[in-house]
Amino acid sequence: MMTKNGLYNVAVVGATGAVGQKILKILEEKQFPIDKLKPLSSPRSAGKKIQFNDKEITIEEATPESFKDIDIALFSAGGSITEKLAAEAVKAGAIVIDNTSAYRMDPNVPLVVPEVNKEALKNHQGIIANPNCSTIQMVAALQPIRKAFGLSRVVVSTYQAVSGAGLDAITELTNQTNQYLNDEEMTAEILPAGSDKKHYPIAFNALPQIDVFTENGYTAEEMKMINETKKIMGAPDLSVAATCVRLPVITSHAESIYIEVEQEGLTVADIWKALEGAEGVVVQDDPSTQTYPTPLSAAEKDDVFVGRVRKDLDNDKGFHMWVVSDNLVKGAALNTVQIAQSLITEEII
Amino acid sequence: MMTKNGLYNVAVVGATGAVGQKILKILEEKQFPIDKLKPLSSPRSAGKKIQFNDKEITIEEATPESFKDIDIALFSAGGSITEKLAAEAVKAGAIVIDNTSAYRMDPNVPLVVPEVNKEALKNHQGIIANPNCSTIQMVAALQPIRKAFGLSRVVVSTYQAVSGAGLDAITELTNQTNQYLNDEEMTAEILPAGSDKKHYPIAFNALPQIDVFTENGYTAEEMKMINETKKIMGAPDLSVAATCVRLPVITSHAESIYIEVEQEGLTVADIWKALEGAEGVVVQDDPSTQTYPTPLSAAEKDDVFVGRVRKDLDNDKGFHMWVVSDNLVKGAALNTVQIAQSLITEEII
Repeated sequence: MMTKNGLYNVAVVGATGAVGQKILKILEEKQFPIDKLKPLSSPRSAGKKIQFNDKEITIEEATPESFKDIDIALFSAGGSITEKLAAEAVKAGAIVIDNTSAYRMDPNVPLVVPEVNKEALKNHQGIIANPNCSTIQMVAALQPIRKAFGLSRVVVSTYQAVSGAGLDAITELTNQTNQYLNDEEMTAEILPAGSDKKHYPIAFNALPQIDVFTENGYTAEEMKMINETKKIMGAPDLSVAATCVRLPVITSHAESIYIEVEQEGLTVADIWKALEGAEGVVVQDDPSTQTYPTPLSAAEKDDVFVGRVRKDLDNDKGFHMWVVSDNLVKGAALNTVQIAQSLITEEII
Repeated sequence: MMTKNGLYNVAVVGATGAVGQKILKILEEKQFPIDKLKPLSSPRSAGKKIQFNDKEITIEEATPESFKDIDIALFSAGGSITEKLAAEAVKAGAIVIDNTSAYRMDPNVPLVVPEVNKEALKNHQGIIANPNCSTIQMVAALQPIRKAFGLSRVVVSTYQAVSGAGLDAITELTNQTNQYLNDEEMTAEILPAGSDKKHYPIAFNALPQIDVFTENGYTAEEMKMINETKKIMGAPDLSVAATCVRLPVITSHAESIYIEVEQEGLTVADIWKALEGAEGVVVQDDPSTQTYPTPLSAAEKDDVFVGRVRKDLDNDKGFHMWVVSDNLVKGAALNTVQIAQSLITEEII
């Protein structure tokens, strides 16, 4: 479905959210070939105006009727909105790229990080899922290693920013920080999970819960990392374990990752070499100059940064590394836009 | 060497530091049997007065002559002070309990967490080393599991508080936090390591460097966790890997730990049971009520708290857990005082 002028009508559902705002910014920056942009939101934000490519556009309420003439609909408004409207958008002829977890594990829905598995896009049936933020940066860093040397095991501990829980979570962190510094009691109403019963302060703290708990004692975030990694990599037998922790950090997720490769006798330099050729991955790793990525250094950047690569001292096939990326950019909005770009370059749309 | 009245003369070297202050507080709280307390410091702080057991005591400058008539000298003034004065204290007849890394790996120096290996105290030759903060809480949690089920492997990622780098690092964090909230540039002069060349902001960030780098690409902190764990547990063949990360947290270190036990077929309940009977360890683990320890919940408490115990989804012998403790209490000052108490109960002094 090539449009006549090579331009596309694009809807952004959840245009006022943390990810939605980033999507709009990246569509502009990357000069995505847009004919008509349609920002959509809840009734609460509808009527607000945004600037896009130097034009003022009014945000409309997202309804089942919003998707007439839309070619690509980028959803980032929460799972319930996706469940309500994504099928309507597809029915109206749009391809949906969804940022929520609603369809990610649906066998009929491709779950895509373009550098890793853009070939999966060909099998779409209207909906394409954007993976979880912490998963995207991990698979982007691990796939080049897997391709070069094989991969049998992943154990990850995350260091995640509050912006992954939305703009209100950022406000909660800064409010609590001010309360703490003024010796006031901290008020917690959102984190660790807006939909859960108890809330704990995140300022000057670390919360070992992201999203709600599942029946096996792992959180939903941990199970997303485990299941989505296997699906994206097409590696059902890969051993993946995750512990997900929220930090008093505003932007960028970091991950301490232990892997076991299949090839014997590799060095740190071999791992660097596999990563240095990889699309979207930047190695920042030099102990002699204290060079490694941090959440602040990775913020607002497109890439996935890898540092602290070390060979395990006991296991010849084991390596440790530290992977950091902006959770709203590559972890969400950029990957969404890259999926849309891939639909064009792969001639799927 | 039982003193006549069952009381001991105790020197505290580094009495004005983050750990020194805690040691004085804990000596009071635990009613350690003190005849004479001698707080010692650098010339800069000498002359200051402290309150101890309702008496005012003047801090003296620590010199080679400071240890006459001292039975127990508790050092926490940095490795160079220990190297300069510990031998003098021993020569004067004191038993030194040292909080720095100066003597920890010396084969003639017991490295002790009393719950784990107080029997090692018997072999002391004047100096006893207090382990690294992040090591203490980890071995306290792992030893009961090792005793019950065997232990072959440990992979830990840490979430460490700035107070581990001293009082100045706490000030740096709060200053940077205010700078960030006021849209000012953050000034970094201490972290990640005061003695290293480059400094990075810690506020709203996470730094994958604690202490300086060693030749193998691991940091000194990571090598401490690896080597000290093996020494304390008397397990030279135990596989231990560590990634150490500093957080914008003031008090308490947290650790995401993956272990492999030797016994097959264990459940989470088996791990809980082993931990629940252990001295100084408290299980806080109930996903149904969002119960788990956090740095804020563990602060100012004596115990090592364990939560988020999960069985690995692929490896029958693998378990994940989240271990939190106040790095200045059990991680430093309390363990030091507990070593001193053990010298008395084990009739070594």
